Amino acid sequence: MKILFIGDIVGKTGRASVKEVLPVLFKKENIDYTIANCENLAHGNGITEETIQEMRQAGINCFTSGNHIFDKKAALEFIEDYPDVLRPLNYPPSVPGNTYRIEKLPGNKTLLITNLLGRAFMPPIDCPFRALERLLEEKKADYIFVDFHAEATAEKAAFANYFDGKIDIVVGTHTHVQTADERMLPNGTLFITDVGMCGASDSIIGVKKEGAIKRMVTGLPQRFEPAGGDWWFCAVIVELDDNIRSIKRIFFKSKKEFEEWRLKN
Amino acid sequence: MKILFIGDIVGKTGRASVKEVLPVLFKKENIDYTIANCENLAHGNGITEETIQEMRQAGINCFTSGNHIFDKKAALEFIEDYPDVLRPLNYPPSVPGNTYRIEKLPGNKTLLITNLLGRAFMPPIDCPFRALERLLEEKKADYIFVDFHAEATAEKAAFANYFDGKIDIVVGTHTHVQTADERMLPNGTLFITDVGMCGASDSIIGVKKEGAIKRMVTGLPQRFEPAGGDWWFCAVIVELDDNIRSIKRIFFKSKKEFEEWRLKN
Amino acid sequence: MKILFIGDIVGKTGRASVKEVLPVLFKKENIDYTIANCENLAHGNGITEETIQEMRQAGINCFTSGNHIFDKKAALEFIEDYPDVLRPLNYPPSVPGNTYRIEKLPGNKTLLITNLLGRAFMPPIDCPFRALERLLEEKKADYIFVDFHAEATAEKAAFANYFDGKIDIVVGTHTHVQTADERMLPNGTLFITDVGMCGASDSIIGVKKEGAIKRMVTGLPQRFEPAGGDWWFCAVIVELDDNIRSIKRIFFKSKKEFEEWRLKN
Amino acid sequence: MKILFIGDIVGKTGRASVKEVLPVLFKKENIDYTIANCENLAHGNGITEETIQEMRQAGINCFTSGNHIFDKKAALEFIEDYPDVLRPLNYPPSVPGNTYRIEKLPGNKTLLITNLLGRAFMPPIDCPFRALERLLEEKKADYIFVDFHAEATAEKAAFANYFDGKIDIVVGTHTHVQTADERMLPNGTLFITDVGMCGASDSIIGVKKEGAIKRMVTGLPQRFEPAGGDWWFCAVIVELDDNIRSIKRIFFKSKKEFEEWRLKN
Ligand SMILES: [Fe+2]
Ligand SMILES: [Fe+2]
Ligand SMILES: [Fe+2]
Ligand SMILES: [Fe+2]
Ligand SMILES: [Fe+2]
Ligand SMILES: [Fe+2]
Ligand SMILES: [Fe+2]
Ligand SMILES: [Fe+2]
Repeated sequence: MKILFIGDIVGKTGRASVKEVLPVLFKKENIDYTIANCENLAHGNGITEETIQEMRQAGINCFTSGNHIFDKKAALEFIEDYPDVLRPLNYPPSVPGNTYRIEKLPGNKTLLITNLLGRAFMPPIDCPFRALERLLEEKKADYIFVDFHAEATAEKAAFANYFDGKIDIVVGTHTHVQTADERMLPNGTLFITDVGMCGASDSIIGVKKEGAIKRMVTGLPQRFEPAGGDWWFCAVIVELDDNIRSIKRIFFKSKKEFEEWRLKN
Repeated sequence: MKILFIGDIVGKTGRASVKEVLPVLFKKENIDYTIANCENLAHGNGITEETIQEMRQAGINCFTSGNHIFDKKAALEFIEDYPDVLRPLNYPPSVPGNTYRIEKLPGNKTLLITNLLGRAFMPPIDCPFRALERLLEEKKADYIFVDFHAEATAEKAAFANYFDGKIDIVVGTHTHVQTADERMLPNGTLFITDVGMCGASDSIIGVKKEGAIKRMVTGLPQRFEPAGGDWWFCAVIVELDDNIRSIKRIFFKSKKEFEEWRLKN
Repeated sequence: MKILFIGDIVGKTGRASVKEVLPVLFKKENIDYTIANCENLAHGNGITEETIQEMRQAGINCFTSGNHIFDKKAALEFIEDYPDVLRPLNYPPSVPGNTYRIEKLPGNKTLLITNLLGRAFMPPIDCPFRALERLLEEKKADYIFVDFHAEATAEKAAFANYFDGKIDIVVGTHTHVQTADERMLPNGTLFITDVGMCGASDSIIGVKKEGAIKRMVTGLPQRFEPAGGDWWFCAVIVELDDNIRSIKRIFFKSKKEFEEWRLKN
Repeated sequence: MKILFIGDIVGKTGRASVKEVLPVLFKKENIDYTIANCENLAHGNGITEETIQEMRQAGINCFTSGNHIFDKKAALEFIEDYPDVLRPLNYPPSVPGNTYRIEKLPGNKTLLITNLLGRAFMPPIDCPFRALERLLEEKKADYIFVDFHAEATAEKAAFANYFDGKIDIVVGTHTHVQTADERMLPNGTLFITDVGMCGASDSIIGVKKEGAIKRMVTGLPQRFEPAGGDWWFCAVIVELDDNIRSIKRIFFKSKKEFEEWRLKN
């Protein structure tokens, strides 16, 4: 079973990269299921029904998210109509939205997908360790996939190692920069600290450079806008079978890099 | 000119990786100058004279550091006797220690090395943007190398883009996980968000798993000890010449991976 | 029913103030029950059996605490032998220690005492709102007293207002500085943002000035030691009866101020 | 010389309290100079020209501010036309706005007023200790008044004690809750950790309860609106003369409390 996971898609530029890359990737790799983090889908902040539908049409089967998922408040109303859009499991129970999804995949295997928020350097939220433990007691599947949306590398590594051997995949998201540490942990869990983003390459993690720099240099409030132009596409391909267990990074740093890869492969 | 930069060396295991890898790397790559981040050199926290000398003998020419540099207070006394050990430039002026170093390299080129701390999710410190600007007004060199020791990907990208075209290299450190985003910015500055660490591979960013996990799961205070066993070695090689300008990642995720590389190259 | 609540007792100087003030206060006010926050009791960090026993002898009936309660690790072993020492309710369930206490008071009234941690600007911990809600569903008493140990004024006010009318008293602790905003909320809950501390007056919230200032001015690590000399004594007296409901601040800013009060009253 | 300092004025309700209290206070106390913190003046966030003029007419001679001063971006344009409106001294030099003011007061004494931001639990900013030291080297006056706008009690106490004997008054602001610790430090500086706010009493530090509580309970983004209804008025009166040196708190917790005081005094 081959799962494609795409990191935080940031605004229109991020969506454009997905629409350009996915058809090619689907042709070259035998992808069974595609997941993407959608917290920055709609103009960099949260989601709209239109942008979710646009990404469904591009071939994404399930969406994880993060701390920005409800930045556009309309999502609070429609999110439960979208069983393929997950909000982090460790928001309080009063928050609307589905928190996991179980899918039947080729070979009659089931895949459980869920999503949690970290706490280090992030807003207060319920304990992600116990939240996932509770879910694992209640729900079973052949394979378990977790998007752990967190800032600190230590928290991500602690989370993945805590569940090492109990779940199959932990992909980190939120920092928008892909890490190079994809690996199998000692008890078999596949892990990467951060998958990175799909968004403008000439930017500060997806947003326009001027505003982001000005805020840090002056301390003054700034509006952040997603940047345009050339893009990054960041993802991982995870392969899980009775005798295969692997995680592979994909990082196109420009359209040109993607084109070169397309022609070579 | 080829510069090797080694990410945060964590404790004895990190030093062991450096002593094993450097002789081979020096033989295979024509390295002109070697820099390493030493903030976790001595049992994971700060530095001792012995560990600095051990790393000098391994071939390191200059040390950058970070928020842990003075964890062992003796360093406050001896640091000024070590012109090759830099403390971050944007500590207050009352803090002892050299903040930059200018070296004459082959081809009669000068290299200025300096080191700064970020502020997002880190203890309060002077503005790194203005601190580096002031240094650049006063000191000149053919090439300028900066280790920007910071947590947040956005702050690191903002810093590198702010100085894009004015300095030659920005390597990020502090998160202990190598990122895969090494690249040249639009105006020529070479940049990577984080070089990663040299330290125990089966660990939480270099420290023993049990304590790090227990703190997050229970909220109780824990002593952090550097872990042992197999190691990671994380570095970048930067090449700078009249017509070359490149940055290349090195990441050995185990002794075995290093051995395989050694035999193949 | 008159309850005396004493703010964070910091080290030997704080304990000395308690031993000096309590006999006089007990004589002048008809106190039925005395509670104190003990998180800084033993040399400023955590508790020892000796310091708890010393304060029991001084007349304290029950101890609340906070984020420093387990700074001395021995407390993890002995805390369950002390039913009068409470650790915050919203630590994870795996943490040892009692989290509430129900006492029978004069007039055959029961008093439930509990203690929770805030989250704003504090280490990650379980949601205090839901933790208290769960306790209130399970345990009943005529009067409910909560020490909410938190940093941010907004979080303390939100907590007290959320439970306004459902509990009788919310006293804030942790900042070590008494606030002047004691009052009854619209639905009857008595509230003060922070009760303050018992500790050295010529200090930085109880610790020696030199180290605390040096850390902020230089950014260097410092050992914090409780300061000595003259003291502050900070407390509130809460009166609860069928037709009385009041909260009164007590703040002696020096031994001399206490002496003057003693002679006048 | 009698200086009245009014804590953070929050929105329309805060301004109403000022307009009601000041005429009475001016009549009863012989105030020479009135300062107020204006960072929340205009609908809770920042300032407008109209609200500043309204408060000038109410009798305020000089405005200090804080981290919210530029929430309404128009202030960046007009602030330099208002020499009586100070932005914190330790913003970077590129930020517009006056940072101090020297006034000639009765008895031919000069008063220097300035304003700084703290850094603990606040956005990164320049070191307030060194910023004030530099100003004190350059500017002289008979009396020096500082509004130190900061979150943490320890940072405020450290700041006041660091400058104890070198400046005359340190009033803390930002938490919106008045502390009861007004006092003279060992070398003569008058200090209070926080003066508190002028704003809606039935609120979370001035903003509507529902939104503030909902954000903490759910973790969801909320718009914060200043609350209305009855108000708090928080201030201090500082008296400085050759043989007087005192600080007195004023805290009206409702219009009714103010009325009672008015009739009694
Ligand atoms: Fe994101
Ligand atoms: Fe995020
Ligand atoms: Fe670091
Ligand atoms: Fe480090
Ligand atoms: Fe405390
Ligand atoms: Fe505390
Ligand atoms: Fe304010
Ligand atoms: Fe503020």
